[in-house]
Amino acid sequence: MKFFKNLPILFLVMICFISFVSVNAESQKETVNIAILGYGTVGSGVKEIVDNNFERIEKSSGKQVKVKKIFVRGSHTELLNNSNVFTSDFEAILNDPEIKIIVESMGGLDPAYDYVKRSLENGKDVVTPNKELVATHGAELLKIAAYNNLSFRFEASVGGGIPIIEPMISSLNANNIKQICGILNGTTNFMLTKMINENLSFESVLKIAQELGYAESDPTADVEGLDARNKICILASIAYGKHIYPKNVHAEGITKISSEDVEHAKNLGYVIKLIGYAKKEENDKISTFVVPMLVSYSNPLSIVNDVFNAVLVDGDCTGAVLLYGKGAGKMPTASAVVSDVIGCINNSKALKKVYWEDSNNKDILNDFEDFEAPFYIRFQKDNTEEFLITEKMKVKDFNEYTQTFEKLGFRVFSKIMVLD
Amino acid sequence: MKFFKNLPILFLVMICFISFVSVNAESQKETVNIAILGYGTVGSGVKEIVDNNFERIEKSSGKQVKVKKIFVRGSHTELLNNSNVFTSDFEAILNDPEIKIIVESMGGLDPAYDYVKRSLENGKDVVTPNKELVATHGAELLKIAAYNNLSFRFEASVGGGIPIIEPMISSLNANNIKQICGILNGTTNFMLTKMINENLSFESVLKIAQELGYAESDPTADVEGLDARNKICILASIAYGKHIYPKNVHAEGITKISSEDVEHAKNLGYVIKLIGYAKKEENDKISTFVVPMLVSYSNPLSIVNDVFNAVLVDGDCTGAVLLYGKGAGKMPTASAVVSDVIGCINNSKALKKVYWEDSNNKDILNDFEDFEAPFYIRFQKDNTEEFLITEKMKVKDFNEYTQTFEKLGFRVFSKIMVLD
Repeated sequence: MKFFKNLPILFLVMICFISFVSVNAESQKETVNIAILGYGTVGSGVKEIVDNNFERIEKSSGKQVKVKKIFVRGSHTELLNNSNVFTSDFEAILNDPEIKIIVESMGGLDPAYDYVKRSLENGKDVVTPNKELVATHGAELLKIAAYNNLSFRFEASVGGGIPIIEPMISSLNANNIKQICGILNGTTNFMLTKMINENLSFESVLKIAQELGYAESDPTADVEGLDARNKICILASIAYGKHIYPKNVHAEGITKISSEDVEHAKNLGYVIKLIGYAKKEENDKISTFVVPMLVSYSNPLSIVNDVFNAVLVDGDCTGAVLLYGKGAGKMPTASAVVSDVIGCINNSKALKKVYWEDSNNKDILNDFEDFEAPFYIRFQKDNTEEFLITEKMKVKDFNEYTQTFEKLGFRVFSKIMVLD
Repeated sequence: MKFFKNLPILFLVMICFISFVSVNAESQKETVNIAILGYGTVGSGVKEIVDNNFERIEKSSGKQVKVKKIFVRGSHTELLNNSNVFTSDFEAILNDPEIKIIVESMGGLDPAYDYVKRSLENGKDVVTPNKELVATHGAELLKIAAYNNLSFRFEASVGGGIPIIEPMISSLNANNIKQICGILNGTTNFMLTKMINENLSFESVLKIAQELGYAESDPTADVEGLDARNKICILASIAYGKHIYPKNVHAEGITKISSEDVEHAKNLGYVIKLIGYAKKEENDKISTFVVPMLVSYSNPLSIVNDVFNAVLVDGDCTGAVLLYGKGAGKMPTASAVVSDVIGCINNSKALKKVYWEDSNNKDILNDFEDFEAPFYIRFQKDNTEEFLITEKMKVKDFNEYTQTFEKLGFRVFSKIMVLD
């Protein structure tokens, strides 16, 4: 009888105790354990920053961040034998309740997609710089994350260390985004800059870029615009709230750009840049593609040289905002990953949002052939080489126009879109 | 007896009910009521964006944002008589439990400081574009906000619509910030651009700026560098975690810049810009000031023209990151304010952080006289005018050097720091 009489008081005491414990836990500096999947350039950079900028990270997150495990393949026996931080057992990481955040820095889709998906399903926040993964499976992974009230973050997937994703999501979110133009690939921008400044051919600058380690031995993903396409797809998906799949987006690279075009462009007041482009048109559909473009000297993108990247976001309220910096490299990219880790910690109690939803791309994308722009054309007739910039016209009309040109006996060397 | 026996069950049922109600409330689209204090340029812009970009805001915040009240002074009888949204009764706003977020857009310190402080003490998040308020009372207001687990946000206080504060706090937070250089005042940048491009005198461009409404009839705050000083103090406080007070920071404006200096700078490969500067020196103290500087054409700040603003943040991992856009104006500034409102809503459950603490500035600031840089000097001897750029030296040594020059019979016209 006495016990039951005291029950309400007992409850109150228990509630006070629980509150006390949880408040107290929060005011102390806890450790947040993370795991890194893959120990290449970015993964090792993340480890370095977590170790070296420890104080700064603690100040920003209020927690001590510790790399508990690093996943590498079984073939990395030297790493695996020398430190028990390294493991080739992903399942052990997945089932370790102490590990709250997974950094996926393996690249590619296999096994990254499977590992990330299962991490989210198992209650872990995920951070990744993997643009291919986000561009291909972003809608699905964001949905799983939101369903489990977890973070899925990927600031480093576009523009390396430049803040782009977070500003678009949280600083420009009162704006309707009219247009995005980006120099999104450092390798091709380095090559074009060298072609512009030193009047070299595509083939020679590719060789230089490969010697300097800026371009891979198979440079396809860079020079054909595929890397930039993944990135513009991520930016357009954020801006317009629907997943835009790379396979549905037209991409041209810089392989056909000649030093003559670079020179003529200069004389006309332009530089040639590989541009990732997205725009909401008047029909409410989106035009998006990657092509080399003539960019006027008056456009701030024209001064983005070497391996630098930049994104020009045009909001209906802010006007044009430019975000510029090093688009790649170990430390810039890793620092963006670590900022995302801090973001996971700081926003652990916030309701998670799906930045974009899955979509049938057919209903929301305009045909590339219908995009309107002025065009640069270089042609030859009777041994005289000439170049000009056309009026604004649709891509398909311009293609017809050049076909007629050729029928009339002109030899057409180059056709390049002009950024309007 | 039976009642007591059922008490534990009763408690469980109550807890389930409360959980159900709160979860349910979250899954519905609630309305978040805000109040705007002041209906000038920014305040009216905020109202416009909340009304016009309603869908976009709902998508970003998951809530419907509504302007419930707008505070104006009693003298605005037309506004007050025509709509019951307007009120001259601040206390009614303060005591309205439905109003969760206050947008302070009155400017100045009185009564903004009092109103903001009491709003935070009364459980309301506060958003403000008021740089003077943040630079003067930021540490105190951040502390009150954190104590009450509220947001105090001020993205629009620096660089208008350009995302700067949020990227520094949440995207570059894995970095130790080495240096910040900013073109932070649109009015003076417009004037300098006109001086550079049209070779006009300071007096004539001031008149043009006043005619265009870019400069006020009393232009002191702009042309003497006081506005830029408030802004660099905010950025330096964020970067280094300690409140840096404007009164302790050296500020020079552009009133002494002549068209001759602009011309000579051009010939040397520089443009003259009013720069807000902050750097962590090797002695772990901070050098910060506002002065006109010669900026090399190779520095991306050199292309920031007209009323545009830009901030170059140099992180130890990211390297130099440039954030560029319209630094002022109704819609850009108001859009940054609305983004902060969305930020308050999205992060309502996150633990609030004090971005910087109060500080005794004496212990953390270096003396301006000890700052080292190269200097541009223009002087005359025997009717021949000359100019040169010195080696890197301390400000005080350069001042001694020019005094010696004058003793030797040289007439010194101009002395301008060079951005190194």
